[in-house]
Amino acid sequence: MSIKPLADRVVVKAAAAESTTKSGIIIPDTAKEKPQRGEVVAVGAGKTADNGTAIKPEVQVGDQVLYGKWSGTEITIDGEDYLIMQEKDIFAVL
Amino acid sequence: MSIKPLADRVVVKAAAAESTTKSGIIIPDTAKEKPQRGEVVAVGAGKTADNGTAIKPEVQVGDQVLYGKWSGTEITIDGEDYLIMQEKDIFAVL
Amino acid sequence: MSIKPLADRVVVKAAAAESTTKSGIIIPDTAKEKPQRGEVVAVGAGKTADNGTAIKPEVQVGDQVLYGKWSGTEITIDGEDYLIMQEKDIFAVL
Amino acid sequence: MSIKPLADRVVVKAAAAESTTKSGIIIPDTAKEKPQRGEVVAVGAGKTADNGTAIKPEVQVGDQVLYGKWSGTEITIDGEDYLIMQEKDIFAVL
Amino acid sequence: MSIKPLADRVVVKAAAAESTTKSGIIIPDTAKEKPQRGEVVAVGAGKTADNGTAIKPEVQVGDQVLYGKWSGTEITIDGEDYLIMQEKDIFAVL
Amino acid sequence: MSIKPLADRVVVKAAAAESTTKSGIIIPDTAKEKPQRGEVVAVGAGKTADNGTAIKPEVQVGDQVLYGKWSGTEITIDGEDYLIMQEKDIFAVL
Amino acid sequence: MSIKPLADRVVVKAAAAESTTKSGIIIPDTAKEKPQRGEVVAVGAGKTADNGTAIKPEVQVGDQVLYGKWSGTEITIDGEDYLIMQEKDIFAVL
Repeated sequence: MSIKPLADRVVVKAAAAESTTKSGIIIPDTAKEKPQRGEVVAVGAGKTADNGTAIKPEVQVGDQVLYGKWSGTEITIDGEDYLIMQEKDIFAVL
Repeated sequence: MSIKPLADRVVVKAAAAESTTKSGIIIPDTAKEKPQRGEVVAVGAGKTADNGTAIKPEVQVGDQVLYGKWSGTEITIDGEDYLIMQEKDIFAVL
Repeated sequence: MSIKPLADRVVVKAAAAESTTKSGIIIPDTAKEKPQRGEVVAVGAGKTADNGTAIKPEVQVGDQVLYGKWSGTEITIDGEDYLIMQEKDIFAVL
Repeated sequence: MSIKPLADRVVVKAAAAESTTKSGIIIPDTAKEKPQRGEVVAVGAGKTADNGTAIKPEVQVGDQVLYGKWSGTEITIDGEDYLIMQEKDIFAVL
Repeated sequence: MSIKPLADRVVVKAAAAESTTKSGIIIPDTAKEKPQRGEVVAVGAGKTADNGTAIKPEVQVGDQVLYGKWSGTEITIDGEDYLIMQEKDIFAVL
Repeated sequence: MSIKPLADRVVVKAAAAESTTKSGIIIPDTAKEKPQRGEVVAVGAGKTADNGTAIKPEVQVGDQVLYGKWSGTEITIDGEDYLIMQEKDIFAVL
Repeated sequence: MSIKPLADRVVVKAAAAESTTKSGIIIPDTAKEKPQRGEVVAVGAGKTADNGTAIKPEVQVGDQVLYGKWSGTEITIDGEDYLIMQEKDIFAVL
């Protein structure tokens, strides 16, 4: 997929409603504030620190991640919906 | 086009209402919060970090980019409308 | 438990309602603003300072900790509830 | 004109109502939020970065610039009205 | 007392209602905004500066200190009440 | 006049109502938001940058300066009224 | 007086209602926003800059100073009232 997020942004494919991950994590997306699960499909080059040094992103394409319920902005690529968000909106890699 | 944006600003030519990019991205600009697509027509020299070092911009003239729905300020050059915005308002290069 | 918190985040298993720790600390979780007790089950790699240097976390897996009453976000892993929070929400190691 | 703006301030002579620049830019100043055009008549020595290094201004005396509609403060010099603003209020050099 | 405050936090045992310290300081805790007096019982390793360097705390265990009236969070250890606060909430060592 | 402003503060003697400076600048102080003119009578040693380096002030005693209408705090020295303000409140040296 | 202010704090003994200093400064404390005069009786070791370097305070014990009308917090030492404030609340040394 030919999209290059800028700086510390990450493109995530949201997981289907409720599904269990390999490592057994259940994310009932109906729960109000519960974090959501998804897969990383594109990662930016990373943020620039205050003194100009590049800060490498921690996530990689293919990672299953937990992110904040209201994080990111919706985009459509080849008819598929994705979310583009900043890495700081991602809680953890599962 | 003889306009030189200052610092980390970028001039973007907004794409027509709805069009599909080479890489198949459909951006129905009617959608409320959906990011918009456009082409970069001028790029500034880049921002200065807190310690005075220059931070090179990631985008280049000719890039197809996704930017926030309400980003930038409208300007008219040779009768054409453009948007001038900061690079941090641009989500990704398509 | 295969969860890797990002940056300075920590996963904590909240302690049962009221229990006394080895070192005799009683945390009646009914008390309005009182900090809560729990055990650290996963720790991120740490935050990146403004100049790009990595800041090692102070807590480790297995630590009994005191954290702010409203800190963190609830997640469910293998049917168990945990809290994922930033290290700065943790007051002390008991 | 013997005025020395401090730090990153710039003195600008606002362009007449609507006029076309050499490079054909039409700026109908009646438009509500549209940036305004003017000429730089004095430039400060530049801002000091957080670590004390001087940051040279990008604009120079004589530059035609685009600046935010509500930027700057009005001053009168030898009976002429000017605007004194910070360089970050200037979008681009035309 | 086996509690290790994190970062720049300090555990303080609040002084009894009104008492005079060796150096003669009277702190009528009824006074609305007046700072309160107490004894330091545990001190964290210190804060990390923006560039990652550790900043040693100024107070030590045993110091009599003056702190802001509303500072800190209440915790109970072995049935005793203490306050856990950040060092910046402490005005002075008496 | 024996007053030493601290850090980046400057003491200014406000100019009389409306007067024309040598360089012909008319500042009708009745105008609502117009900057005011005055003379610098004392200058502090300068601010300390985030990394501890001293930042020399740009203005000197005797400079005619333009400052924001509502800047500074009034003080009385030997029966005369002055304004004490931060250097960043001063727009330019005339 | 055995009080050691922390970081950049300073203890000031407020001057009596209206009095004239050696250098002739009259501070009618009735004036609403006028700065107040007082004498420095204790000074902290100084603030720590963002990169961990210590920033020496400018004022010393015995200095007559001008400070903001509402600055500082009241404390009582040996029955005497003082104000403890941050050095940035002090305008100037008289």
